[in-house]
Amino acid sequence: MGKILRVNMTDMTVKTEELGEYAGLGGRALTSSIIAREVPPLCHPLGPNNKLVGATGLLAGTPAASSGRFHIGCKSPLTGGIKEGNSGGLVSQKLARLGYSAIVLEGKPADDKLRMIHINKDKAEILPADGYKGMGNYETVGKLWEKYGKVGTISIGSAGEQKLCSASIAMNDPDNRPTRHAGRGGQGAVMGSKGLKAIVVDDTGAPGVEIKDKDEFKKWSKIFTDGLLKHPVTGQGLPTYGTAVLINIINEAGGLPTRNFSDGRFEYASEISGEKLTENCRERGGKETHACTPGCVIRCSNVYNDKDGNYLTSGLEYESIWALGANCDIRDLDVVARLERLCDDIGIDTIETGGTIAVAMEGGLLPFGDWEGAIKLLDEDLRNGTPIGKIIGSGAVTAGKAFGVTKVAAVKGQNMPAYDPRAIQGIGVTYATSTMGADHTAGYAIATNIMKVGGYVDPLKTEGQVELSRNLQIATAAIDSAGLCLFTAFPVLDQPETFEAIYRMLNAMYGLNLTADDVAELGKTVLRTERDFNTRAGFTNKDDRLPEFMYMEPLAPHNQVFEITDKELDEFWNF
Amino acid sequence: MGKILRVNMTDMTVKTEELGEYAGLGGRALTSSIIAREVPPLCHPLGPNNKLVGATGLLAGTPAASSGRFHIGCKSPLTGGIKEGNSGGLVSQKLARLGYSAIVLEGKPADDKLRMIHINKDKAEILPADGYKGMGNYETVGKLWEKYGKVGTISIGSAGEQKLCSASIAMNDPDNRPTRHAGRGGQGAVMGSKGLKAIVVDDTGAPGVEIKDKDEFKKWSKIFTDGLLKHPVTGQGLPTYGTAVLINIINEAGGLPTRNFSDGRFEYASEISGEKLTENCRERGGKETHACTPGCVIRCSNVYNDKDGNYLTSGLEYESIWALGANCDIRDLDVVARLERLCDDIGIDTIETGGTIAVAMEGGLLPFGDWEGAIKLLDEDLRNGTPIGKIIGSGAVTAGKAFGVTKVAAVKGQNMPAYDPRAIQGIGVTYATSTMGADHTAGYAIATNIMKVGGYVDPLKTEGQVELSRNLQIATAAIDSAGLCLFTAFPVLDQPETFEAIYRMLNAMYGLNLTADDVAELGKTVLRTERDFNTRAGFTNKDDRLPEFMYMEPLAPHNQVFEITDKELDEFWNF
Repeated sequence: MGKILRVNMTDMTVKTEELGEYAGLGGRALTSSIIAREVPPLCHPLGPNNKLVGATGLLAGTPAASSGRFHIGCKSPLTGGIKEGNSGGLVSQKLARLGYSAIVLEGKPADDKLRMIHINKDKAEILPADGYKGMGNYETVGKLWEKYGKVGTISIGSAGEQKLCSASIAMNDPDNRPTRHAGRGGQGAVMGSKGLKAIVVDDTGAPGVEIKDKDEFKKWSKIFTDGLLKHPVTGQGLPTYGTAVLINIINEAGGLPTRNFSDGRFEYASEISGEKLTENCRERGGKETHACTPGCVIRCSNVYNDKDGNYLTSGLEYESIWALGANCDIRDLDVVARLERLCDDIGIDTIETGGTIAVAMEGGLLPFGDWEGAIKLLDEDLRNGTPIGKIIGSGAVTAGKAFGVTKVAAVKGQNMPAYDPRAIQGIGVTYATSTMGADHTAGYAIATNIMKVGGYVDPLKTEGQVELSRNLQIATAAIDSAGLCLFTAFPVLDQPETFEAIYRMLNAMYGLNLTADDVAELGKTVLRTERDFNTRAGFTNKDDRLPEFMYMEPLAPHNQVFEITDKELDEFWNF
Repeated sequence: MGKILRVNMTDMTVKTEELGEYAGLGGRALTSSIIAREVPPLCHPLGPNNKLVGATGLLAGTPAASSGRFHIGCKSPLTGGIKEGNSGGLVSQKLARLGYSAIVLEGKPADDKLRMIHINKDKAEILPADGYKGMGNYETVGKLWEKYGKVGTISIGSAGEQKLCSASIAMNDPDNRPTRHAGRGGQGAVMGSKGLKAIVVDDTGAPGVEIKDKDEFKKWSKIFTDGLLKHPVTGQGLPTYGTAVLINIINEAGGLPTRNFSDGRFEYASEISGEKLTENCRERGGKETHACTPGCVIRCSNVYNDKDGNYLTSGLEYESIWALGANCDIRDLDVVARLERLCDDIGIDTIETGGTIAVAMEGGLLPFGDWEGAIKLLDEDLRNGTPIGKIIGSGAVTAGKAFGVTKVAAVKGQNMPAYDPRAIQGIGVTYATSTMGADHTAGYAIATNIMKVGGYVDPLKTEGQVELSRNLQIATAAIDSAGLCLFTAFPVLDQPETFEAIYRMLNAMYGLNLTADDVAELGKTVLRTERDFNTRAGFTNKDDRLPEFMYMEPLAPHNQVFEITDKELDEFWNF
């Protein structure tokens, strides 16, 4: 196991500690345990008592496929509860190779200067960073590579500096593009509140991670990789079309939220589909398949060029395309890509931002479909912090208040992602009960409701949805703790040996004797730890509900409302 | 007892009902009971399932002194909990004389037209009111008197039409000035969400209220009036200086929150004091004493003219002067009066608005003391609904999010009034535990902590504060249910026969046999009913806490933090 790098931004001290009581934990289990133990649940999220915790997964730094997620947790400024978000990029593997399991940022500087942290094999130090003030993530990481070489970076844009509730944290990818974001729930604002613009990780000469039984590890690592490559979703669907393949699929299922969750089908879905994306990537010299992190075999990312063949963005994902496309009635994939690029650069969560613009559109700020207005909102208002920019950066619930809009598709203050729970009831259980607020990644019921992975549960019926979401949330919490990409869950759900490979790799690496039951138990423990924090922060089962309109307003084309009862939702926690 | 006028804004029907299960209730007891029973606690406050309930007090329409408060309740858009606010004005007595105990507004129109309700002895009807769109309260009530005679009015300004969380509801006073507001917590937004601009009450030819034992009533009514007149606070202090007399007193006590709760003393307190106010009123031909409602003998209100002797505002109260003065570092009473006039006209709560501007000042939107900027924020931005106007109208918590300010003095989403709980610990217990959010009127510990009414509890010590707040909150809930002005509490606390007069008047009026214990029991029942609603809306004891900074940052000049423990706060509900 690695160590904890603890950086105090009040007295500007840096120290390295043993994991101690957190030994054996990684990824989300580590971030959530540190927060639950060390952060007062009623503290102000942007005050000195909140902590921002970045953690590598248990398999980070090894050759295990898709094991390089970086996990960032805190008390969320958006939800007021515990938060963990993770993404790919360079930084997790590099930190692990330097011997760190986690970085804990605590305290708050008395001044309002910007700083950065530079970490290499010799030391970690706090450096001035005022020269980066107001800079977008693209320019920031460009300058950091110029100065420090091919380092892993963690950075915030203008939104994080403004401490806005939807601000994300960017990790650079192997091409030094700051397109991998952990940030649903405002981690970027917490980083900004601590006066930190960037963390730079240089693993030159790093010792690397120790693997106790190399042969055993290699054997199970191969089984794991083979499992990813042979499953139709991770071996074919995702590498070919990326996540955007879901646009047509979810539209067909009648669950693609359109014009602020007022319809389940978008008439122009084909214009922003994965197929269209692939076509554009091919024609313009982009990349239709691309790894966001070294060692990924799924390669679901992409590089998207503009009409002239110049780089525009990468990692143009389903969720972002939906949020900035269908949900705002924006029908042009090139415009969506520009909006997504702006979100990456300013450092703001695409899902929350698309949801917020849609609410503002419903409130009359600008018409649905006004893409020029949307670009201005991001590039001018949000980037420069005008009042409307601050509303947009504060999330859909705040925009709902400002514009008197009652239809705000949020749970625990966080806007829903790209699946309407009235058409796909299982995901509604996850939105309602997740400790994170409305979060599809917490328990991706779409897998079983729509993609028929791990069996099939009819998306329009209520039967089996709570159990499905419960099983998925437990499994996800475990996968998030191993530091594996969530997409590994598809083969894990369908192929027993791919699941076995996970704990076998952990056993080989650490000399442990974990079983399948231990993995499930870890997932349960993580969820209980997070829920306990939320309870101490004032959450109750009343927060495990969807917004009122989803129980009242049927969604076309199925004309259903969300039908899982409160009693059924409360049964989620019976484990 | 009167009847309920039930107005459905979905199907535009109006009907009159018996009180039924609500028989025997008035004022806050009636509004809170109807809401607790009829409003789904998790509904959207601006949706069709919320109800706006206006109620007269049990003594309304009688000659009892200070019995003309009008109570307006709903689920609050600001706090998300139950809400009751009350004020003077003409409307309560007129409604009571027409035979109504309450108006219940429910549903929501499908269109966005504005409407009004006209009530007289013959009928109540919904009328078009689009011609009043965007109109300030002053112009609105002026036109209503032109058209309908000397009616009682209930109206909203631009803020209510915009459905902003701090929007208030205005009642006109005997001079037809819309200066009496029920509105902490956004009742104006709920009225706006129902498409209602105004309610007009014409009691011409009204039957009046029945008093079963007139002689007995007259006897106790005189004892009650005499009690108000002989007590130093209601007989001398309030009529002479109005509530603004508190500026110097609370400043002296070190509890006058200054520059967004960063100091307990304001260097320029004398410039905005009650003494200064009285001097200006005298010199400029205003009125230093004035009744906000017919039959009030306390006459704590005033009429404030500008330097040229022209009417500027009336009911310039301590809370408003503090909020728009000391808390924003605005040092000129004439400017404060202009700001207060703007709040009345736009229909926005002065306490929340001053608190919100102070947070925006702390966040760097404009400097502390920038009174021209503050006037522009209200008169241009808030009135016309620019983005910054919408932030200001959404309250201090929202402004804190937008500007990344951690020092937001709010409880349950509502900003604190004009007493810093670090210097006056008793009021902190009320702020924390009140079902209403931070609300001084819920249990005015200042009476005993500072004014030595009802005994004395040292404001800087923790001993006795919870018990004090509990007793005051129970008594207040009872007084609010009788429909009496809260200021009657001063003599009621000190003079047993003034207290006795309240239930003796009720007994004489309704032929009852109420005792002192029944009054206390009524207060307890109201509080429990409200808390039960809040619990069902998701509140816990974690919401009964002051904001973190009040436990961390000592306040000058006493350099104390808030010292009542969580355990002690939780003991509040032991009754």
